[in-house]
Amino acid sequence: MTAQGTIWGVGLGPGDPELLSVKADRLLRGARHVAYFRKAGRPGQARRILDDMLHPEVTEIPLEYPVTTEIPLSDPRYNATLSAFYDQSTKRLRALSDAGEEVVVVSEGDPFFYGSFMHLYTRLRDVCPVQVVPAITGMAAAWTATGTPITWGDDVLSTVMGTLPEDDLSEHMRRSDALVVMKIGRNIDKVRRALRAAGRYDAAWLVEFASMPGQTVQKLSEIEGKPTPYFSIIIVHGQGRRP
Amino acid sequence: MTAQGTIWGVGLGPGDPELLSVKADRLLRGARHVAYFRKAGRPGQARRILDDMLHPEVTEIPLEYPVTTEIPLSDPRYNATLSAFYDQSTKRLRALSDAGEEVVVVSEGDPFFYGSFMHLYTRLRDVCPVQVVPAITGMAAAWTATGTPITWGDDVLSTVMGTLPEDDLSEHMRRSDALVVMKIGRNIDKVRRALRAAGRYDAAWLVEFASMPGQTVQKLSEIEGKPTPYFSIIIVHGQGRRP
Ligand SMILES: C[S@@+](CC[C@H](N)C(=O)[O-])C[C@H]1O[C@@H](n2cnc3c(N)ncnc32)[C@H](O)[C@@H]1O
Ligand SMILES: C[S@@+](CC[C@H](N)C(=O)[O-])C[C@H]1O[C@@H](n2cnc3c(N)ncnc32)[C@H](O)[C@@H]1O
Repeated sequence: MTAQGTIWGVGLGPGDPELLSVKADRLLRGARHVAYFRKAGRPGQARRILDDMLHPEVTEIPLEYPVTTEIPLSDPRYNATLSAFYDQSTKRLRALSDAGEEVVVVSEGDPFFYGSFMHLYTRLRDVCPVQVVPAITGMAAAWTATGTPITWGDDVLSTVMGTLPEDDLSEHMRRSDALVVMKIGRNIDKVRRALRAAGRYDAAWLVEFASMPGQTVQKLSEIEGKPTPYFSIIIVHGQGRRP
Repeated sequence: MTAQGTIWGVGLGPGDPELLSVKADRLLRGARHVAYFRKAGRPGQARRILDDMLHPEVTEIPLEYPVTTEIPLSDPRYNATLSAFYDQSTKRLRALSDAGEEVVVVSEGDPFFYGSFMHLYTRLRDVCPVQVVPAITGMAAAWTATGTPITWGDDVLSTVMGTLPEDDLSEHMRRSDALVVMKIGRNIDKVRRALRAAGRYDAAWLVEFASMPGQTVQKLSEIEGKPTPYFSIIIVHGQGRRP
């Protein structure tokens, strides 16, 4: 009987290929099977980081999200469609593991921090060997890009998603010292209102494409009305104790 | 006139040398001047990661914290002593920069996330070129070590320091979905009480020395009364939406 191969959940970091970990770099250059998520028909950000890195004999395994834009998030069919997609992806990876192959599944940023890989991980971990390699998060690249430290002394940092209801957003924004907002996209107007209600709007920075080509750092209040890309993070810096 | 050399603030990541970024690895192996913080007389965790990495002709610049254990944190002399130490360290680094030398100043984890380097950074950034390289945080290594993802869907993650007052701690612990507690040390009993008051105690994991030799992962409730080392992080996982 062949021993099962390990499935590696490897974080790619925020986008700059030099911000991969030494371990991720080593695993990716040696990998014979590399899987990544993408939207159907799009190359995908994760895949772009891998250009020039992959082994000449690699087999690529694109995992294509089902199109869900016409189903509202609250509709049970939304969850059912995604769930079937993760089940199917799990089967593909497990078949490789059972055949003794190692597979590297890449994630943008850190795999365990709001990453899609988590949905495969929970399905795989009881049926084959899985290892996870942490990575630099998008938010760390974003606060570094602002040129100002994010947290000092006793500062509380809260990370909130733009998909939350407006009142929850402003409540968390009011109560924490430093703030990171992710998954902004179409929620940008709601996020702006919540920041205003919490009195944090004028201190907010928008970082687009942190550490990627096209990185921008702007005061949110100076770009009213501009749409934000998927890779956008809002940063409000803490003001804690500093000797 | 010699052009000033760049001061690099380079994050080392959580401890495992393979979790350095490719960029940090490259800068450190090439560096002729490497500075790191340590307590007087101690080798220091940051320095340990550098064993076997540094250039044979490197000059090491240990920056030794003044002994402050006998001054309470609330005493203005505490801040004054630390402030003088950061001013002095800044002078040493600036002299090298003015002489045209590049210097790498290392930080544990990410430099802008509760790091000591921030105190040099704010003093240096207006007088010489400074560049910061983000890194994998201690908390990312800690949640990876637990084998369970930290945040799902719309989960709010709050990062709080054990040095906060008990009521503030329990308030934040109650309000956020996922939780990271750092700077625990002598505050462990207060942190336990706050977790209990917030109803999160039984879900809390303690990770010591994440990704370092001697790493441990334990349920906090199963190790009552045990002291915790400096490199300890408490993790409470989020339970958000998962298709
Ligand atoms: C599904 S979450 C994945 C987070 C990722 N696992 C991490 O550790 O950063 C996607 C969100 O991450 C944020 N993001 C990740 N990387 C980014 C980058 N380099 N620049 C800007 N935003 C980024 C955006 O807010 C995006 O909506
Ligand atoms: C001054 S803060 C520095 C944080 C660091 N800049 C980072 O990005 O993780 C020190 C605290 O970080 C936490 N810490 C950092 N690395 C750790 C590790 N590898 N294992 C456990 N705790 C760690 C501990 O809670 C410690 O008290």
